[in-house]
Amino acid sequence: MTFEHLLATRTDNMNASAVREILKVASSPGVVSLAGGLPAAESFPLDIMDELPGTVLARYGARALQYDASEGFLPLREALVPHLGARGVITTADGVLVFTGSQSVLDSLGKVLISPGDCVAVEAPTYLGALQAFNPYEPRYVEIATDDEGLLPDSLDHVLAANRVKFVYLVPTFQNPTGRTLSLARRKQVAEILRHHSALLVEDDPYSDLRYAGDPVPPIRTLAPENVVYISTLSKTFAPGLRVGFCVGPELIQRWLVVARQGVDLHTNTFAQALSAVYISEGHLQRQLPRIIELYRPRQQAMLEALERHLPEDFRWTRPEGGMFVWVQGARGLDAEHLYHRCVALGVAFVPGKFFYVNQEEGIATLRMNFTAADPATIDRSIAVIGQAITEEIGARV
Amino acid sequence: MTFEHLLATRTDNMNASAVREILKVASSPGVVSLAGGLPAAESFPLDIMDELPGTVLARYGARALQYDASEGFLPLREALVPHLGARGVITTADGVLVFTGSQSVLDSLGKVLISPGDCVAVEAPTYLGALQAFNPYEPRYVEIATDDEGLLPDSLDHVLAANRVKFVYLVPTFQNPTGRTLSLARRKQVAEILRHHSALLVEDDPYSDLRYAGDPVPPIRTLAPENVVYISTLSKTFAPGLRVGFCVGPELIQRWLVVARQGVDLHTNTFAQALSAVYISEGHLQRQLPRIIELYRPRQQAMLEALERHLPEDFRWTRPEGGMFVWVQGARGLDAEHLYHRCVALGVAFVPGKFFYVNQEEGIATLRMNFTAADPATIDRSIAVIGQAITEEIGARV
Repeated sequence: MTFEHLLATRTDNMNASAVREILKVASSPGVVSLAGGLPAAESFPLDIMDELPGTVLARYGARALQYDASEGFLPLREALVPHLGARGVITTADGVLVFTGSQSVLDSLGKVLISPGDCVAVEAPTYLGALQAFNPYEPRYVEIATDDEGLLPDSLDHVLAANRVKFVYLVPTFQNPTGRTLSLARRKQVAEILRHHSALLVEDDPYSDLRYAGDPVPPIRTLAPENVVYISTLSKTFAPGLRVGFCVGPELIQRWLVVARQGVDLHTNTFAQALSAVYISEGHLQRQLPRIIELYRPRQQAMLEALERHLPEDFRWTRPEGGMFVWVQGARGLDAEHLYHRCVALGVAFVPGKFFYVNQEEGIATLRMNFTAADPATIDRSIAVIGQAITEEIGARV
Repeated sequence: MTFEHLLATRTDNMNASAVREILKVASSPGVVSLAGGLPAAESFPLDIMDELPGTVLARYGARALQYDASEGFLPLREALVPHLGARGVITTADGVLVFTGSQSVLDSLGKVLISPGDCVAVEAPTYLGALQAFNPYEPRYVEIATDDEGLLPDSLDHVLAANRVKFVYLVPTFQNPTGRTLSLARRKQVAEILRHHSALLVEDDPYSDLRYAGDPVPPIRTLAPENVVYISTLSKTFAPGLRVGFCVGPELIQRWLVVARQGVDLHTNTFAQALSAVYISEGHLQRQLPRIIELYRPRQQAMLEALERHLPEDFRWTRPEGGMFVWVQGARGLDAEHLYHRCVALGVAFVPGKFFYVNQEEGIATLRMNFTAADPATIDRSIAVIGQAITEEIGARV
């Protein structure tokens, strides 16, 4: 028996199987993957986790295992207030909603905001997981142009003037996939443009705590609080397996997000929220974060040096001050997907950058490389392999 | 600034605020709630939880905190194979998908199967949370008639013959809200009808382990394995706060469920899945379940006896052999929502049954009462209050 005829029409819009199929081999035994977006296992606070569940059960008892409010576990929402405040995002416990990872905020935003054919504005390139969250709601995407410093405010202004945009989706800090961070000057322009068009921005900020150099830049939310749904997560600073994300946004949007997620999963895992509440409120996060940064800084350094050492002169790449990714712009004519298969055969994987574009042909020659999941020596060896493969690709093409 | 104009059209279909608003007062201080569907806090294995996180971290280390497969944490999928097998649901680890509670299976099923206007067949009354999961996908519901023994197979046959039904949704065992269990004879008829129409059934089975009397009845999945997505959960036998549900279904449907949930929340909380894997595989569930049953059996007994003692003669109610609810059919003319407000003022809450109907007027005189969350003495006192309020309601009407 087949049930093909039962599938909803929206599934036509959900088949991202190309990238999934391609990346399956990246997790094969013997392949070093610079493809994923995994935090290092060494970044997890395993020592703290020896104590944390006991503390949670002593403090909250059965409440940590029971059904809880769709809005989030109150002690976590309270703990998130100063955590967000330190970034300039001013809110109250009532103003924060907790979700099952920031992915689930994106899904619920899609559900309450996107009717089929509605316009969503995204950077080119943009976060693939956001497209996967929005696609089932059948939006039409409009791309906002970027340069080496990230989104171009003029392009945003033009896009908002020329289209009825439901919302703009940006990762302004250490963007996935490029690692780029929008400057304060551009953020101010973006805030002004949002206000001018009475537009809504979804500001996704999973990485800003992972800063290895330079000074923090305030979230766009701080510059246009009425126009921004600000999303963040504990996946990079505690543990992604706990699936704890959160958001602060305009009251009407927050109210609908709660309605939406009641149908999706009722509420976020109470035990994970209780662990997170204690992790933040007892100062564990503040103690762990410098360790994570000290772990990642040399990995990023190793990647940047290896790229310098092993990649052809006509290749360019970003030099982010934080985050998890470096973005490589190959020489004209490079087919990064073709290169990918050659590299995997040699035991190294990355993500062909075209999958981060709505119009994939724009990204044919680009590569996303993660530096958090491998140690410096492995990173150097892997980039050497990629460099060698590039030389062979180019040689084969000549 | 208001963003009303940004809301997706599907939000017109999502506003279940009536029942939410009504039930808010049920959780006020001083109100005994027979309204919720909460397991008793005493049912949670707090003693086991003292050890379980340590076992998980010793066994799985950082893996328990890392991103994991969208299909589910392999050790849990493996542990679920004999757990499901004991119910007659034969599968392999690859055949089981783990979701963020069974609610999230329902959401993803809606996403991959329901186009706006598509027909979904449900019992009358049916589980409210399923309607909340499906509503955003804008289905049209067709009701299948029930009698005191549950769904009427002839009505199912008629519904499937007269409509292009995407899927049938049933809770065949200790149904929420009625507590009714479909007999084996009727299950066989249902299986035959499903096969005859090549129809798909979503069989939601959260309660079958909570049996206080009588013999188990096999899931419909065992009688028509090719036609059924079988869903269950650990919320009633471990802890609902962990948000662990799972399903077994036709391969095509499972494949699409994985695609859908990647956009929704990537995967289920790894730590909760690892806790669940150990809870099942080490025999904790098998040891805890009899304790839960011994806790709930006298509570249900107390409710049935109290109803006998305090309710008017022309009221009828179900006498389930398990589950969490008793369903009361009031005398003709009773307005259970009006009664609800009177009872809350007296400190006792239940759920007016009309909210479990697609056509709410069918359920005006019905009440759903939960017996798991209060002790026997409290249940007796609460039913006495409701009985008194009913007498006053009827008196006021005469």
